[in-house]
Order: sequence, then C-alpha cells, then structure tokens
Amino acid sequence: MKKKYTIGVDLGGTNIEVALVDNKGNIIKKVKVPTRVSEGPDEIINRVIILIKKIMKDVPPNKLNGVGIGAAGEIDHRRGRIWFSPNLFWENIPLVAKIKKKINLPISLENDANAAAWYMHQLGPAKGVDNLICVTLGTGVGGGIILNKKIYHGWKGKAGELGHMTLFPKGLKCNCGSYGCLERYVGAPYIVERAIKKIKKGEKTSIRDKVSGDWSKITPYLLEREARQGDKLSKEIWAETGEYLGIVLASVINLLDLEMIVICGGVSKAGEVLFDSLKDTLKKRIFGKSPGMVRVVYSRLKEDAGVIGASLLFS
Amino acid sequence: MKKKYTIGVDLGGTNIEVALVDNKGNIIKKVKVPTRVSEGPDEIINRVIILIKKIMKDVPPNKLNGVGIGAAGEIDHRRGRIWFSPNLFWENIPLVAKIKKKINLPISLENDANAAAWYMHQLGPAKGVDNLICVTLGTGVGGGIILNKKIYHGWKGKAGELGHMTLFPKGLKCNCGSYGCLERYVGAPYIVERAIKKIKKGEKTSIRDKVSGDWSKITPYLLEREARQGDKLSKEIWAETGEYLGIVLASVINLLDLEMIVICGGVSKAGEVLFDSLKDTLKKRIFGKSPGMVRVVYSRLKEDAGVIGASLLFS
Repeated sequence: MKKKYTIGVDLGGTNIEVALVDNKGNIIKKVKVPTRVSEGPDEIINRVIILIKKIMKDVPPNKLNGVGIGAAGEIDHRRGRIWFSPNLFWENIPLVAKIKKKINLPISLENDANAAAWYMHQLGPAKGVDNLICVTLGTGVGGGIILNKKIYHGWKGKAGELGHMTLFPKGLKCNCGSYGCLERYVGAPYIVERAIKKIKKGEKTSIRDKVSGDWSKITPYLLEREARQGDKLSKEIWAETGEYLGIVLASVINLLDLEMIVICGGVSKAGEVLFDSLKDTLKKRIFGKSPGMVRVVYSRLKEDAGVIGASLLFS
Repeated sequence: MKKKYTIGVDLGGTNIEVALVDNKGNIIKKVKVPTRVSEGPDEIINRVIILIKKIMKDVPPNKLNGVGIGAAGEIDHRRGRIWFSPNLFWENIPLVAKIKKKINLPISLENDANAAAWYMHQLGPAKGVDNLICVTLGTGVGGGIILNKKIYHGWKGKAGELGHMTLFPKGLKCNCGSYGCLERYVGAPYIVERAIKKIKKGEKTSIRDKVSGDWSKITPYLLEREARQGDKLSKEIWAETGEYLGIVLASVINLLDLEMIVICGGVSKAGEVLFDSLKDTLKKRIFGKSPGMVRVVYSRLKEDAGVIGASLLFS
C-alpha cells in the first residue's frame, strides 16, 4: 500500500532542494540550500542527509514511502550510483549506499530527465499516455522515456540521451567526443552561436542594435523576444532549431512509435515558430501509412518540478 | 500452460510457408507454395487458410497453441491488421479477422523483423539478453526491438523502423518520402549504387573486369567476394556501410541503452570489414563514462527462421 508522503530531493549543480510531498504532488514543506560543488561529494552528501533528517522530524516514519532523488547525469538507477555528473563533477559515486547508512528509508535515485518525464506522465499532459518521450531543452538537451507506462532505463540505466543522438554525421565536435550531436546545435549556447554566425555574415536583424555589437549579450531569451517582434533572423534561428529537433525526433518516432512528445525546459518557450517547424519536420519524416500522428505538447516545468518529480518515483 | 505445437506462417512476397513447429523450434512438417501477389489479398489469404487446415489435420487441436504469422510491412499487431505491405502491395487488410472466420485457433500476427528479433531472443545469440535490437540487412533495412524481454511494439505497432531513421538530413530522397534515410544508403540496391558511383569516377577495382562493363551485374555478393579478395574499392564500400550503420545504431544505443545488437540478413555476410567499421563507429559515438559496451553479434538467419520465428510468438 502506498503511504501518504514521500521526501523528494532535487540535487542540482546550484541548489539542493528537499521537500515533503504528499501523494498528490503537493509540497507540504520545503528546504533549500546552495550545493557548493567545490566542497566535494562527501560534504554535499552530508548536507543532503541533514536536510532529509530535518524533514523526517515532521512525519511519523510509517507514513513515508521513502526518499526519491533526482540528479543530472549518467545515473545507474538500479545500483543507486552516479556514474558521471557533469554539473556536480562527480564520477562513480554510490550515492544511495552513502545515504542509506544514515537514513533508514527506501531510497530511489533517478536521472532528472527521467524524473521530469515521470512527472509529465503522473501529473502533466502525458497522463494516461503509455509511450512518450519528454524532451528537456536548456543548456543541455535531455530525454526521459516512458514505455508501457514505466520509466524506461535500458541496460545500464543510461537510456534517453536524446541530445547525443547524431544530427549531422560530419558535423561539429560535441563535448561528449562525438560529432554532430543534436545538443551541439540546439543546446542554448549553440542556438546563440548559430545566431552570432548569421549576424556576422551580415544578415539584417534587430538583434544587432539591441546588444550594441556585444555578442555576449545575445541569449535565447533575447532571440525569443525578437522573434515575437517579427525579427527575421531570430525567427529563422527558431525555425531551424525546430527542424533540427524534428529530424532527430522523427528518427525517435520511427524507432519507437511513441504517442506523445512533451517538450519542456527554458528554450522551448520560443513558442509557435519553433513548434510549427518541429511539427512540419515530423510530418515529412515520420514513416508509414497508418492513421494517427504523434502529439507534440509543450509543458512549462513548474519551479518545483524537480522535487515533486523525484517524490513521484514511489508512485 | 503452453501446448506442444504451434503453426508458423511466413507470408512473404515470393512464397507462403506454413509449418508445424514444436515447443523447441523444430519443424515437424512444412508446406510451401508461391504467393502469386498479382492474385490479390482474398485469393492469397484463402491459400494461407488451406495450408493451415492441411497442417491442422495432423495434430489434435488441444495440442496446438495457435497460429503465428510473420509478414513484412506496417503491421498492427494488436488489431491483427496489415496497414501496409510493400511486398504484397496490400493496404489496410484485417488479416487475422479474415483467417479467424475459417480457423478456430488463437492467431497472432507480427512484423517479420519483430519475429526475427524474437527468434534471436528465444533461440539465437540474444538468449537471456533483456534489451536488444535485431537488424535485418537486405533489400530493406529492418529492426526488431526486444525491451525488458518482450517484443516492443509502440503505440500503433510500428516500432523498429530503423531503416527510416535519418542518416543524412539533407541526403538522398528515400522511397518513403523522407530524405537521407539509413536504408537509402545501406539497403542492398543502394550499396550497389554507391559502388557504381565510385567505379564511374574511375577508381581502380577488380569489379570492372568481373562484370565487363555491365553495371547491372554488380551485386552485394560480388562486392563481398571482391572485398575478401582484397579489392580496395569493395572494401571501402563495406567500411562505409559499417560506418553508416554505426552512426544510426550509436544514436539508437544513446536513446535506448541496449545490451546487444544482432545483425542478420543477406548483406551482413560481408564480414569483418563491415563489422570492424561498425564497431569503431559505435565506440566513437556512444555517450557516457559507465563501463561496459554494447555487444554486436552476427547471426546468419537459417532458411526456416521465418516460420520458426512466427511459431515462437506463443512462447
């Protein structure tokens, strides 16, 4: 039987958030402290333990399902291990084992993109959808996959690396070591990079005036605002971004025949010009004659989606 | 409880094969007739029914699990419907319903690439492997996916269209209407097309003499033989084929974190030069720092793999 409360932990590169969350995803109580990455794993894990204990004081243990933790990176969900975290700079840390020594509750660790997908499936627009991918667009490009109503982890728990699927085989070198990865084109810094390239070529744009020649002031948010104001170059950048996403997502659909694509994260706020181009590309590239088309929906991740998503791991 | 026998049907564009198969995948009896596609669905389905009845005569019905049918194309496994079959030229045929009117047994219809993957998982090199893709290389490029020990169908039963994942976004037009699909580069006719292009450019090769200038005599088998004899151009073609496959399969692994890739089908007989290049490409492009590398194995599909695979659908 499911109990009434779960503790959710969002272990990010900037903040650690720990919350008491009820069965319906409501936050009852929340604590938040800076992560301070430079202090290293042991200090940070201690801080997580202290916060969990603080929250535990308010609830009888028999009303708690356990602790659900969401973290970025290469997570071995089954072994409770972080193989690699790019924002914490951790390698091979047995996080669950370390916390279990101090906390006598079931503990579940999950990649944050998977937790976001689970959130969408439990409380978001993908409720009742059996097979879906949740795409998080931001600095990085993440993917969480729900198949047959469950988070799909794969062999080693690494499934969902949408951002490192190949877009252009002979394309630009990616941080991961491969070439032409999707993230290298539609991750936030690379969207900006593409815009700067176009501006430098001399294309007419309202951006030039807005930043008075200081390219470092160009952000996805500026490109978004200018696109809404009708700036041609900004619109081109978002249309191209939608096309690039669509090319890779069409491959995903041809492979997995999903019912829904949920797009979330900061960059996805660009709106129509991004989504129209994404949907057009999907239509052109999805294989087959059977009726019915994958639904594409946008969902703004709420501020507390991280901790709530993590708490839902016991649902 | 599983019964002792199953009837397997391999519904191909050239032949219909129907066999009585035991629990261990042994063929007890087999009948085979030409499909004669031009006669249309009703005639062909009648022929299938007659063959099934013929086989049924030899077994008491209480010893039969049912009839498993494998067919190429876009198959709705749940509804027993063929949405589209490129080799039978069928569209929207409720095959299972039509057969059920005459045959009083459970009937299961499956895409042939899925049936091949299931065969690999039940009796082939993927025995005991939970998550894998089986790639069939031939005129077309197919994929069958096993996730968590079961055939993965997706939303509408269309999953596994590996051949229509995008290799080159701005590449050659594919029969499916999209551009730069993997199949458009590594399907048998296109391997030959790439070879002819290279030969016409004047590259030195033993192929030129073997076909005395008649390009229509170039086949994957000739390219395979000449590669084994050391012909540089033929070796290049296979290395390129391995690289192309590797680029798309690395994307598949980054998305699905599979444990094994099984390669089968005629074209995969090219051997080492293909596989070395495929494995190198995977190593370069698979994301992550966790130990362990997807295994790539080659499996020659036996002559009767179609009917046996179909019969295993009740396993």
